[in-house]
Amino acid sequence: MSPTFQSQNARTGEILPGEFHEATPHQIDAALRAAVDAFRTFRQTSADKRAQFLERIAAGVEAVAEDLIELADQETALGRPRLPGELARACNGARMFAAMVREGSWVDARIDTALPDRKPAPKPDIRLMHRPVGPVVVFGASNFPFAISVIGSDTVAALAVGCPVVVKAHPAHPHTCERLAAIVKDAARESGLPDGVFTMVHGRSHEVGTALVAHPATEAVAFTGSLRGGRALFDVASKRERPVPVYAEMGSLNPVFLLPRALVARGEQIAEGFVASLTLGTGQFCTNPAMVLAPHGASLDFFLSEAGRRVAAVAPASMLHRGIHQAYEQGVNRIQALQDVLVTARAAGADQSKCQASAVLFETDSETYFKHPEVLREEVFGPSSVVLRCTGQADMIRFAESMDGSLSATLHGTPEDLAEFSELIEVLQTKVGRLVINGYPTGLEVCPSLHHGGPYPATTHSHFTSIGLSAFLRFVRPLCFQDVPEMLLPEELRDSNPRGIWRLVNGVRTQSAVAS
Amino acid sequence: MSPTFQSQNARTGEILPGEFHEATPHQIDAALRAAVDAFRTFRQTSADKRAQFLERIAAGVEAVAEDLIELADQETALGRPRLPGELARACNGARMFAAMVREGSWVDARIDTALPDRKPAPKPDIRLMHRPVGPVVVFGASNFPFAISVIGSDTVAALAVGCPVVVKAHPAHPHTCERLAAIVKDAARESGLPDGVFTMVHGRSHEVGTALVAHPATEAVAFTGSLRGGRALFDVASKRERPVPVYAEMGSLNPVFLLPRALVARGEQIAEGFVASLTLGTGQFCTNPAMVLAPHGASLDFFLSEAGRRVAAVAPASMLHRGIHQAYEQGVNRIQALQDVLVTARAAGADQSKCQASAVLFETDSETYFKHPEVLREEVFGPSSVVLRCTGQADMIRFAESMDGSLSATLHGTPEDLAEFSELIEVLQTKVGRLVINGYPTGLEVCPSLHHGGPYPATTHSHFTSIGLSAFLRFVRPLCFQDVPEMLLPEELRDSNPRGIWRLVNGVRTQSAVAS
Repeated sequence: MSPTFQSQNARTGEILPGEFHEATPHQIDAALRAAVDAFRTFRQTSADKRAQFLERIAAGVEAVAEDLIELADQETALGRPRLPGELARACNGARMFAAMVREGSWVDARIDTALPDRKPAPKPDIRLMHRPVGPVVVFGASNFPFAISVIGSDTVAALAVGCPVVVKAHPAHPHTCERLAAIVKDAARESGLPDGVFTMVHGRSHEVGTALVAHPATEAVAFTGSLRGGRALFDVASKRERPVPVYAEMGSLNPVFLLPRALVARGEQIAEGFVASLTLGTGQFCTNPAMVLAPHGASLDFFLSEAGRRVAAVAPASMLHRGIHQAYEQGVNRIQALQDVLVTARAAGADQSKCQASAVLFETDSETYFKHPEVLREEVFGPSSVVLRCTGQADMIRFAESMDGSLSATLHGTPEDLAEFSELIEVLQTKVGRLVINGYPTGLEVCPSLHHGGPYPATTHSHFTSIGLSAFLRFVRPLCFQDVPEMLLPEELRDSNPRGIWRLVNGVRTQSAVAS
Repeated sequence: MSPTFQSQNARTGEILPGEFHEATPHQIDAALRAAVDAFRTFRQTSADKRAQFLERIAAGVEAVAEDLIELADQETALGRPRLPGELARACNGARMFAAMVREGSWVDARIDTALPDRKPAPKPDIRLMHRPVGPVVVFGASNFPFAISVIGSDTVAALAVGCPVVVKAHPAHPHTCERLAAIVKDAARESGLPDGVFTMVHGRSHEVGTALVAHPATEAVAFTGSLRGGRALFDVASKRERPVPVYAEMGSLNPVFLLPRALVARGEQIAEGFVASLTLGTGQFCTNPAMVLAPHGASLDFFLSEAGRRVAAVAPASMLHRGIHQAYEQGVNRIQALQDVLVTARAAGADQSKCQASAVLFETDSETYFKHPEVLREEVFGPSSVVLRCTGQADMIRFAESMDGSLSATLHGTPEDLAEFSELIEVLQTKVGRLVINGYPTGLEVCPSLHHGGPYPATTHSHFTSIGLSAFLRFVRPLCFQDVPEMLLPEELRDSNPRGIWRLVNGVRTQSAVAS
């Protein structure tokens, strides 16, 4: 028998009944073999069938939403209204991809028709569209038990385009994962799809993750989590005889820049919004604003007192699990130990035995940052942020140029501020995946324009996003058809355009049939 | 002083006057620092300016086309009409990207407008477009001194989108590279662009390539060449503290399947076309058909005699350089040493001192292939191909399922053949980047629908192509703008759509302005 583990109530530490087995090498191999078998038919299923599959998942989840929310709340302590909102987002995500698949233009069809009489050589007929890559391994994240886990963006994006999925359940919420997996399996069966389109395995050990990534049938990997975890999987995949992409989203600092006029005019309002963003979900977001840069002076002092007052008043809350809580405490202690870093404010009353986090706000100056970049540039996952007193734009630019890749950067500024700090804004655009003006980095709007990615270490490949409509691009590759007769072409590439999709025909974007 | 090397006449081995220095670590660092500096302004240049730059490169090359062709012919022995054709293709490529940049829709602009009154939370304004990643390192290929070298697809695609380029000249045609680089530098100067947008360095040692890929400022790498070379660079990039993508195109077997009715009906014609494809450019194409699979029997015997007769009559020709010639001889010898592999035909008269290759055709059966896959699945770069006698479709499917990723697969079949072999065709689609029916894999049609890529080891990332309009995708990443005021947005994302490009606005594809 393989080793087992149990889940805990995230608030009380109480062991929940039931146990989970570490997946054995044999089970991992069986999951991927089943995925390979399923791929043979799944890649050829109709758009309608795949869309129905996704809609059945959404409906199945909604049908037992209350149970799922209660279960997830026990395992994650994320509470309400967060969990109902996240469940709705996950179901909306499945339906968004269902709609994308039904509409059909996602295949990026291109057609260049033949010119048999062209000199010196005839031009062949060339057509192109996206096809699924094959079995995808998805690692669920701890902090989104619905939206970045078993039924999250990675899974539904891969299923949408016809890739079978093997999910590695997150060991911090295995009961929630089990319930969700059962719903996906039911939906597959009801849709007449082979079982191998979806398999879930459990595991807390590195061996399980490594074996999934190293398996020769794995074609791509999606991961959301820590830099250490993501990089380890990336390294396994890169060293394979046949390397495969690991699309890891590993969080970032998400710096917030307070520009002088906005700081004077709206210091209190920004402090309120900032602290709300920092402490939302006990700060357990990849887009959590872990650093603030602002010009030193009286306005910043006022901001610090306003933000500090609010941070001090944040009620302690249990973090997702013991490991995250320990890492948070260690991260906070590392910062606190630095010379010339002050604790502006720290919430009181955290019960360590319940893995509760105290929100904390630090302050220091940019000079200190450049003395200890190795500590201060590291993301502390949780409700902690460091405010850097800056001397001016040059100082902020120096920070921006030296910073690691980040999912986002945010600026608060009046129109005059933004015009004055245009050079800073330019530099930030080379470092981040998303630029936010007068808002906050948390709270992703899931839509075609969303990009949740960025240069390393925010992600392992800045071309791709893990959230939003474009998330499917990680799981497709173009397939080119040269002089392939109409009867052998996929519907999307036939002259008549039976699906009425947008295509690029001889360089022109159109929904029309190919003129014969 | 760094070590130097000289170039040779590829036909005679004669040393050409002039010498080239291995780039020193200092020169490599200087090239990438200059690229970083240039990126600051280059990424913000207008589409028109970048398009003019590319057009100046094309015009500059055409102005001295005869000189360049003569020089390249000395260094590569590729001769006429190949070199004039390739030069024209490279210039067309530069102009194709200039046109793409001028038209502007390549940025894949997406706009989702705000809904400030939405409940429970307001919807922000989100906009997205592609932006350049930064400095790109391009490794020129030996076999395309114009179209996959200094002014090749990698370079012009990167420059088109605003990425500075550092080219590593191919040491087998350094004089040609120098002439081309001077033209690109002149074009940059005439276009008012900083020198750092384009730098070329020389080197024969692994150290130069490694240093370019390992340099912290390098954001992406493009390479066309051997599996060994490409994988080595991929490994260097994957082990960096901050990994970057290496887009390596490393060639493949490009199997050709002869289906029974077509083999009966058109055996001689296919033999003629096949041998022409096999021996074109002395077989030095990534898409060279290195394996043929066909049902055993009298029709295949006839095909073999027809193809063999033609192969035997191919005039020996000098290969690109000594290293490639040696590798070819070794590869041919490895195959010839296998038991149960016969030499069907071999061209005579090759002068080894001139690095001339003899075209060679082998035959064996599929059983032998499965006994020695490690030898027979390896691409032999040059005019060598192996014909496998198969027992039927199941045998071909077994081969297809076991084969490595390939740039292409080709089938010759009547409509009845293609219907009968539909399962084989399905399997091949999971293995290749391009499916060719009743044609030949060599001779790429450069157009929006072309995909020159495929699963590993054909390339290191099957989502991307190194040739064709989509080649630029390797050098861009999406940048998302949340609630960014109109005045700070790039033109492509402004409400009025001043460039008139295609955009996805609130889910609808349109060239219209955003309704206010």
